Amino acid sequence: MWDFAEMSSDEVASLRARYEPLTQSIRELIDAALHVDADNQVVDQAKAQIDAAAELLRAHPASTRQGMALTPEGESIPWDNLGNGIRNPLAPPLVVEHTGPTSARIDVELGAAYEGPPGHVHGGYCALVLDQILGEVASRGSIETVAATGTISLRYLRPTKLGRLHVEAEIQRTEGRKIFITGHIADEDGTTVTAEGLFIVLRQ
Amino acid sequence: MWDFAEMSSDEVASLRARYEPLTQSIRELIDAALHVDADNQVVDQAKAQIDAAAELLRAHPASTRQGMALTPEGESIPWDNLGNGIRNPLAPPLVVEHTGPTSARIDVELGAAYEGPPGHVHGGYCALVLDQILGEVASRGSIETVAATGTISLRYLRPTKLGRLHVEAEIQRTEGRKIFITGHIADEDGTTVTAEGLFIVLRQ
Repeated sequence: MWDFAEMSSDEVASLRARYEPLTQSIRELIDAALHVDADNQVVDQAKAQIDAAAELLRAHPASTRQGMALTPEGESIPWDNLGNGIRNPLAPPLVVEHTGPTSARIDVELGAAYEGPPGHVHGGYCALVLDQILGEVASRGSIETVAATGTISLRYLRPTKLGRLHVEAEIQRTEGRKIFITGHIADEDGTTVTAEGLFIVLRQ
Repeated sequence: MWDFAEMSSDEVASLRARYEPLTQSIRELIDAALHVDADNQVVDQAKAQIDAAAELLRAHPASTRQGMALTPEGESIPWDNLGNGIRNPLAPPLVVEHTGPTSARIDVELGAAYEGPPGHVHGGYCALVLDQILGEVASRGSIETVAATGTISLRYLRPTKLGRLHVEAEIQRTEGRKIFITGHIADEDGTTVTAEGLFIVLRQ
């Protein structure tokens, strides 16, 4: 259903070593830009450096963008994914740890860039985090199984504080190609958002 | 319920003129980084320029971060909001246009940074977009009314293509402090995701 770039584990390691530090630097730049209070001269100077970096990168465009890679060993590597992409500065990234065949967790720290109400995580980003972990559990972290979101329902118990979050999800039952999964997000004070999702298996 | 920084319209205009171009430059840097295919030397050179810009910004830290501003005229300005923040490079931004007292729309173009499945918008970001517009409709774009998400349910009809999107939302009915709102996202081929939300009015 989706296109992948096939590449060896060595090639993946080489690209990761090249682009992961660049991505991390942009993440830190974003955070710095959200915390600065400077005059026009300083801001314009930083902008000029950023524009120069962008111009340098644009001078070497990829012929085709490869959002995901697949190794002969069956490992899938998310390059561009908004949730967990190694090359996407918008991804914290959300690293999903499979805690069993039907369950997973994410531990992540979200800073100013993920804010909705002042001091709190954007409610829509809570939905994104839960969509990400439910989808990963549905697919069991394997490229062999592709599961698409059918429906997802979220209940907001209270605002989620920015900072360290713990996220869990678990398959409740399966019916043919339908997988029913629940999950939740917790901040330092406990559960803030719960989710129920129905995923559909597209390919096995 | 939330903290705001009070500032005059002139002050808002001055800060917007200072930080909006910086934010836009970082958005373009992110897009360039997702489309580059260069050797280590080029990538390291760009990274050094980015690190220099971040160091310059970090040398002028704000004493307190002000995620949102409120003018004496009652206008609220989102600085840091993940969905529509003028100063947040992660925000496309999602500019909500109120088409009536109970309805609104967003027209936005989403590029590589918002990808989930290759070539398509991250399903969780569709949820974020719908949460944003439903929340804005619930609050009617006014700081006088603060509405919190109670529940939101999303139905994914098919994957949403990256590119130009049209989003609409409308209040269906209100019951005391409860507001029931529906919305949908459409790509160039039509509706891809629908949403139903229940919002709770916290303050009027």
